[in-house]
Amino acid sequence: MNPEIWFTEKYGDDAGLTFKVKKILTTQQSSYQRLDIIETYKYGRLMLLDGLVMLTQKDEFVYHEMITAPAVMSLKNRKKALIIGGGDGGSARELTKYDFEKIIEVEIDEVVVENSKKFLDFTACGYNDKRVEVIIGDGVEFVKNTKEKFDLVIIDSTDPFGAAEGLFSGQFYSDVYNILSDDGIVVAQAENPYYNPDWFLKSRKNMQKAFGSNTFNYCAFIPTYPSGMWLFSIGYKNIQLHSYFNEELYKSVSHTYKYYNAQIHKACFALPQFVLEIIK
Amino acid sequence: MNPEIWFTEKYGDDAGLTFKVKKILTTQQSSYQRLDIIETYKYGRLMLLDGLVMLTQKDEFVYHEMITAPAVMSLKNRKKALIIGGGDGGSARELTKYDFEKIIEVEIDEVVVENSKKFLDFTACGYNDKRVEVIIGDGVEFVKNTKEKFDLVIIDSTDPFGAAEGLFSGQFYSDVYNILSDDGIVVAQAENPYYNPDWFLKSRKNMQKAFGSNTFNYCAFIPTYPSGMWLFSIGYKNIQLHSYFNEELYKSVSHTYKYYNAQIHKACFALPQFVLEIIK
Repeated sequence: MNPEIWFTEKYGDDAGLTFKVKKILTTQQSSYQRLDIIETYKYGRLMLLDGLVMLTQKDEFVYHEMITAPAVMSLKNRKKALIIGGGDGGSARELTKYDFEKIIEVEIDEVVVENSKKFLDFTACGYNDKRVEVIIGDGVEFVKNTKEKFDLVIIDSTDPFGAAEGLFSGQFYSDVYNILSDDGIVVAQAENPYYNPDWFLKSRKNMQKAFGSNTFNYCAFIPTYPSGMWLFSIGYKNIQLHSYFNEELYKSVSHTYKYYNAQIHKACFALPQFVLEIIK
Repeated sequence: MNPEIWFTEKYGDDAGLTFKVKKILTTQQSSYQRLDIIETYKYGRLMLLDGLVMLTQKDEFVYHEMITAPAVMSLKNRKKALIIGGGDGGSARELTKYDFEKIIEVEIDEVVVENSKKFLDFTACGYNDKRVEVIIGDGVEFVKNTKEKFDLVIIDSTDPFGAAEGLFSGQFYSDVYNILSDDGIVVAQAENPYYNPDWFLKSRKNMQKAFGSNTFNYCAFIPTYPSGMWLFSIGYKNIQLHSYFNEELYKSVSHTYKYYNAQIHKACFALPQFVLEIIK
């Protein structure tokens, strides 16, 4: 009988989600973090950074659709998009569904991009599109120094420490504000309110420093992220929330969505009462 | 050093949610099922039936508010309510917030009620209200035979096998339809669409046999239920979905909610695309 190998992501010290492991595909130590890609029975392939689940093959569609589609459907222009982080390629894959002229991804860790290309076809296929340019570098520095303007900025980061710490700062969002085009939108993954309400609040407050009352939060069901409830922060430079929905674009791509749809577009902004209490 | 004791609820054979255990408070074998009440570090007290998490002290508020509040706010009359199952008392506790004249709970397993009263004050406090009458008996038989009419019926059941199997049948919902008052509403817990789409579909289809196109589904984030996404089926006898929202009642009780609110009332009915595909 083969040994049963299990991987458990601990949620704090006292709880966790556990996965039966078929195979460990690779283990790498980069300059920034440890990367493992494992094959599980239930969730297909998992990418772990510093032991935390970044994505699973089975439910990454929720995260990647939801970090992009609500903003894209609210955009008036789709010339240039910028992804900070997102080394697995999933956010890039989603953005290639639309007619952006240019999609720049700034990922700090080359090892994530390389191994995603090698083992995670289902997200790294985003890199096959010629409009996608990958820059290996520090997103904080890129946003501070670029002279380009972007219609959309996606902050597809890890948790707010280590390599991603700078992506949760007020100065960073002020710089993001400055590189957005007039009707530009920024979206950031914003953690979960059950286990890490402080991280969520930090994400929200720092975006708020730059985007003021045009900062909102929305949520999605992601089974393999802690608590299963994931939040996103979204900042609109000039447009108002729900003032515009691109019906025509939606119709042309709606068959590609497995999670997002026109009803979810608005409903995801309704937050449970305890989340409203956190941000009050 | 004390031993580390962990309880894991398996989601199928290959994944699961795991909790560090402080203490096992009781273990019972009733005529229907095995009951365990354990104290954990992260989630406080857990009630397990046949090894599955029925509730945790930390997040039961989501389930109990959401299996009751959306229906209650849509009710025109609040004379009598019926709970089938719900032995922990949480659904009864929620219904006592409102001015129902009578709340009948029909729970098949006395052992669940007794041990909830002993160990789960936070839900069993529902039983302290004089309007709550607990009948130990078979909900299927009760609904078939009662001559009373109810404005609200809550099906707060375990999974669709063993003691709860009859609560997932078409005949049962036909009987429920018959005991509802003219503007009556039924709500049932309806499983999750990630791991058990077939159970969800069964719940929906059987309700639909009796309630036709007045059958809907809504969802809530419950971290300790499989996948974290939980569905409910709701059937309206005569009223239309969202045709009525009791603003006055809502204002009088809104301070008691930790999850539900007026935005969630509508937004929870927006279902992810893959869930719409299941019910298509």
